[in-house]
Amino acid sequence: MSELATRAEKLDAADDLRGKRDAFVLDDVVYLDGNSLGALPAVVPGRVEDVVRRQWGELRIRSWEESGWWTAPERIGDRIAPLVGAAPGQIVVGDSTSVNVFKALVGAVRMAGEGRDEILVDATTFPTDGYIAQSAARMTGCTLRPVAPAQVPGALGDRTAAVLLNHVDYRTGRLHDLPALTAAVHGAGAYVVWDLCHSAGALPVGLDEHGVDLAVGCTYKYLNGGPGSPAYLYVRRELQDRFDSPLPGWNSHAEPFGMRSGYEPAPGALRGRVGTPDILSMLALEAALEVWDGVQVEAVRAKSLALTDFFLECVAAYVPEGRVECLTPIAHAERGSQIALRCEGAGDVMKRLVERGVVGDFRAPDVLRFGFTPLYVGFADVERAARVLARTLG
Amino acid sequence: MSELATRAEKLDAADDLRGKRDAFVLDDVVYLDGNSLGALPAVVPGRVEDVVRRQWGELRIRSWEESGWWTAPERIGDRIAPLVGAAPGQIVVGDSTSVNVFKALVGAVRMAGEGRDEILVDATTFPTDGYIAQSAARMTGCTLRPVAPAQVPGALGDRTAAVLLNHVDYRTGRLHDLPALTAAVHGAGAYVVWDLCHSAGALPVGLDEHGVDLAVGCTYKYLNGGPGSPAYLYVRRELQDRFDSPLPGWNSHAEPFGMRSGYEPAPGALRGRVGTPDILSMLALEAALEVWDGVQVEAVRAKSLALTDFFLECVAAYVPEGRVECLTPIAHAERGSQIALRCEGAGDVMKRLVERGVVGDFRAPDVLRFGFTPLYVGFADVERAARVLARTLG
Repeated sequence: MSELATRAEKLDAADDLRGKRDAFVLDDVVYLDGNSLGALPAVVPGRVEDVVRRQWGELRIRSWEESGWWTAPERIGDRIAPLVGAAPGQIVVGDSTSVNVFKALVGAVRMAGEGRDEILVDATTFPTDGYIAQSAARMTGCTLRPVAPAQVPGALGDRTAAVLLNHVDYRTGRLHDLPALTAAVHGAGAYVVWDLCHSAGALPVGLDEHGVDLAVGCTYKYLNGGPGSPAYLYVRRELQDRFDSPLPGWNSHAEPFGMRSGYEPAPGALRGRVGTPDILSMLALEAALEVWDGVQVEAVRAKSLALTDFFLECVAAYVPEGRVECLTPIAHAERGSQIALRCEGAGDVMKRLVERGVVGDFRAPDVLRFGFTPLYVGFADVERAARVLARTLG
Repeated sequence: MSELATRAEKLDAADDLRGKRDAFVLDDVVYLDGNSLGALPAVVPGRVEDVVRRQWGELRIRSWEESGWWTAPERIGDRIAPLVGAAPGQIVVGDSTSVNVFKALVGAVRMAGEGRDEILVDATTFPTDGYIAQSAARMTGCTLRPVAPAQVPGALGDRTAAVLLNHVDYRTGRLHDLPALTAAVHGAGAYVVWDLCHSAGALPVGLDEHGVDLAVGCTYKYLNGGPGSPAYLYVRRELQDRFDSPLPGWNSHAEPFGMRSGYEPAPGALRGRVGTPDILSMLALEAALEVWDGVQVEAVRAKSLALTDFFLECVAAYVPEGRVECLTPIAHAERGSQIALRCEGAGDVMKRLVERGVVGDFRAPDVLRFGFTPLYVGFADVERAARVLARTLG
């Protein structure tokens, strides 16, 4: 057994989160794609079966009250809240991330008010945020300016209404400085929207602590909610009365069953709801969040950094010099929970890795992405992944 | 046994759709709330279990291709298409009805172009359509004018951009004249958006035949997709190239995995997609649609009318004169698949009906709604419902 393999064993033995792996359905594959689709929590199938057979099949319409369907968006929002550093009452779950970006960004522009007609968007963003930002700009009479996150402070001005940023870059795994960038945006009198898709559940976010205005995120990566599970929207408590949603569906009405023709928005986070929530996906997510009971995000972050450090060490030891280039920053303060390696023929390389039981994913044109979910990835997995990568490239 | 009960038995015995009842999970309750939440199709629990345990739990990320997750929105759209009289390639499933109303109405206004800056909306609409129409108007620089559907022809003009109408009124069960109103809107050079929530699956719609421009609908009423199952968007083929979505998420990009910063819309119905689809809810819906195999919507419509006719006859026979007032039109051409009865103390009356095994619903301030899903409601159910109603009121 190699020195690294031996060390992996010791690291796994000392890992306080080790037991959480049993809360997931896993096999002998090294699954490093939890930053795309989290693995199945073991509690989910039974819960979904109950939702389908009993709640829908037997109680039917009564479940909107009796099974808590109607209040699921805010109840599950409150379950996500501590994972992103938010007090209760500020998050609702529902719709896709794209739809929530639209709500949040239009809402932010409307808060900024007259005279502010420019939106800044992360130039390196996952594309959908950019497309939706373009639409939000068009529909609010703003111009849209793509700016690299590090350049945002210099790009802010009197006309800046809102800034849309990613906490962790989907491609490179770079972690952006949420506290400093939020403060800079506020210093310019503008509002910030953070996309937490690649950070929530992997590292502390501190939404309340850092005074973030609005945030969105998906729940199917590090939160393991299942394929296409609903996204969430955070609106800081102090801003909720001013949140003027571009999608004021009946679920966000102050009296949804009053069937009134005039719209009157509900108070609080409920204002972020739109239409009837998709209950099967939503309650699967609720079950999936139970794996977080007793888990501190800080412990997850510590393990995440240890895993990615160890992966980089194993890659350096096993993979011949010059075959891969790490796009992910080495500094912990700038690293999310994934490692992105640029590599010639990355698409084919990933196919062969998958055939050999190491699942990451490929991002065009030349990036191998490996996500490390601390709740179920161990150090032996990491060592094996690097070893198989070296064999595949060698 | 009363004469009506005897007749109910005969009608059930002669009902060609009788066997479809076995395709649903039902009990001894008379379930007349399928116009709010359809009953559970028996095929769904097993399918959902496979999606969760095997597709998500075992194949994980591979299922986006191997289990057909990625193409589900358009594949399931094509399964709904024949039920609403649409050729393939014009419907995508995803998001809530409210979100789809926003896409459709903004899309319609953009098609209408310069100089047309008024939206007409059904003044009796289910509230969410009105709220969303208000937002669509605000964000496209239009004014919004509520008009009763029958008054629409007289309200159309050179400035009319788009008209949003309900095929069947959610409260009264009135069926509006889709062919005539569509023709009137077209005659004025405007575009029409039909909301099919209360008609799809209950009666023929004829989207293609009548040249409807855009349509939306939910799938959890007569299509039995489950609580909050995703809605759908129809864009007539000839208009697809001009459909300019206000929610251009990455799923509607011509090359979604190209990860390009510039947006280029996909051709065809795909253009109506937004973000990552909620797979659990979506594939539950796909399974639910299997109950339609071999069923003609025309046969469903014939039974629906027979059921509501019979219900009205039983109510007239059993319920003392003057206790209820029928809000649903008697003429078949103006009736959907529900009967709405105005009644003093309707909220309490419905509670007692439910306690006695007859499930309809209450719509403020004074309406008892009874929905008749021809696939699983029989004539004996109808007679029993009227009998229990009479006892409850008596």
